[in-house]
Amino acid sequence: MTHFDSEIQLLKDRLLAMASRAEGAVTNSIQALVQRDDDLARRVKEKDDEIDQLEKEIDEQAIRLLAKAPLATQLRLIVSATKIARDLERVGDEATTISRRSIELSQEPQLKPYVDIPRMAQMALGMLNDALSAFVTRDTLKARAVIPRDKEVDALNKQLYRELANYMIEKPTTITRCLNLMAISKALERIADHAKNVAEDVVYLYDAQDIRHTESRIAT
Amino acid sequence: MTHFDSEIQLLKDRLLAMASRAEGAVTNSIQALVQRDDDLARRVKEKDDEIDQLEKEIDEQAIRLLAKAPLATQLRLIVSATKIARDLERVGDEATTISRRSIELSQEPQLKPYVDIPRMAQMALGMLNDALSAFVTRDTLKARAVIPRDKEVDALNKQLYRELANYMIEKPTTITRCLNLMAISKALERIADHAKNVAEDVVYLYDAQDIRHTESRIAT
Repeated sequence: MTHFDSEIQLLKDRLLAMASRAEGAVTNSIQALVQRDDDLARRVKEKDDEIDQLEKEIDEQAIRLLAKAPLATQLRLIVSATKIARDLERVGDEATTISRRSIELSQEPQLKPYVDIPRMAQMALGMLNDALSAFVTRDTLKARAVIPRDKEVDALNKQLYRELANYMIEKPTTITRCLNLMAISKALERIADHAKNVAEDVVYLYDAQDIRHTESRIAT
Repeated sequence: MTHFDSEIQLLKDRLLAMASRAEGAVTNSIQALVQRDDDLARRVKEKDDEIDQLEKEIDEQAIRLLAKAPLATQLRLIVSATKIARDLERVGDEATTISRRSIELSQEPQLKPYVDIPRMAQMALGMLNDALSAFVTRDTLKARAVIPRDKEVDALNKQLYRELANYMIEKPTTITRCLNLMAISKALERIADHAKNVAEDVVYLYDAQDIRHTESRIAT
């Protein structure tokens, strides 16, 4: 392995360390919500700085490596790494949002046991995990399989939005709690969206084909 | 001017064309909201595909150029272009969200004349415009001045959120409309956030110093 190859490996390792932090943040933010654990929610918010720092380091390393990369495939890998890092940074932000809303939610009695939100979290994290594992194993088929799953999370978010909107109308005393739950559901929908971005980057990286926007994206 | 320089110029021109589309989308989405013009709102949604297509083209061109860039400053410019393009693509998505919510809003009587939302839109667009003009003129002082303005838009979004939440509680018949207005306010807050990202990219590009996350970002 050349010196350049080992530097590329370091870049990948750092990206995976960042991924693991981002995934951990999401997992913990949902655990804090379900178990009404404000301390855990606060820790998620505090540790977001470390995720942000990793993005900086990855970008700096990427720029250094770009100047030395002899092959187009290496250039693509390096550029993809900075994009994936940006998405992971956003995943961390969404986990922070979930934690902040959880802390607000635990100031009032729980509306009802959470069913849909842990399910959405599991789906979004599953997508993120598969996209990252496709990155590591260069498995573009696996990456491609992640992309349509975004629609399922979107559908769950829309369904939950409608349910919560109706619930508010029936019982206006629940408005504050419903708004917090809507924000959490939306954050999970965005995490799934970031996972989809990562999957698209992996396909682009290894198949050298840009599959983004092949159908028009529906913003929500 | 060498062939490489003229290719870099083409990349910049394409980025500015994308910026102009994204700004136009935001302006039109707000006009559609204020004037209750559903046709205009629909056009904003349709034209988002063109913004998405420009991001693809910029990325492809960036990868081609990276293989040939002899200098570190050129590498940074090219990488920054792909990041700015991603932010502009998201600005287009937020304009689409505003348009979709506007169409829903025009199915009911208007809640009250819009004051805060056009003001937020003006602030967010002003930030985006200044960040992009700083990119063109390499004016990092101007880019730096954009960054703190994000907090003002955040503050307006939070204030509007609280007002709308209280309004819902007082008059539950307005819940659907308040939720749509909240989503629009949030979309504008995100546009300001993207403008801040572009400004940070410009500072990074020309001052070669990463100023992101020097204070911890507050996710909402």
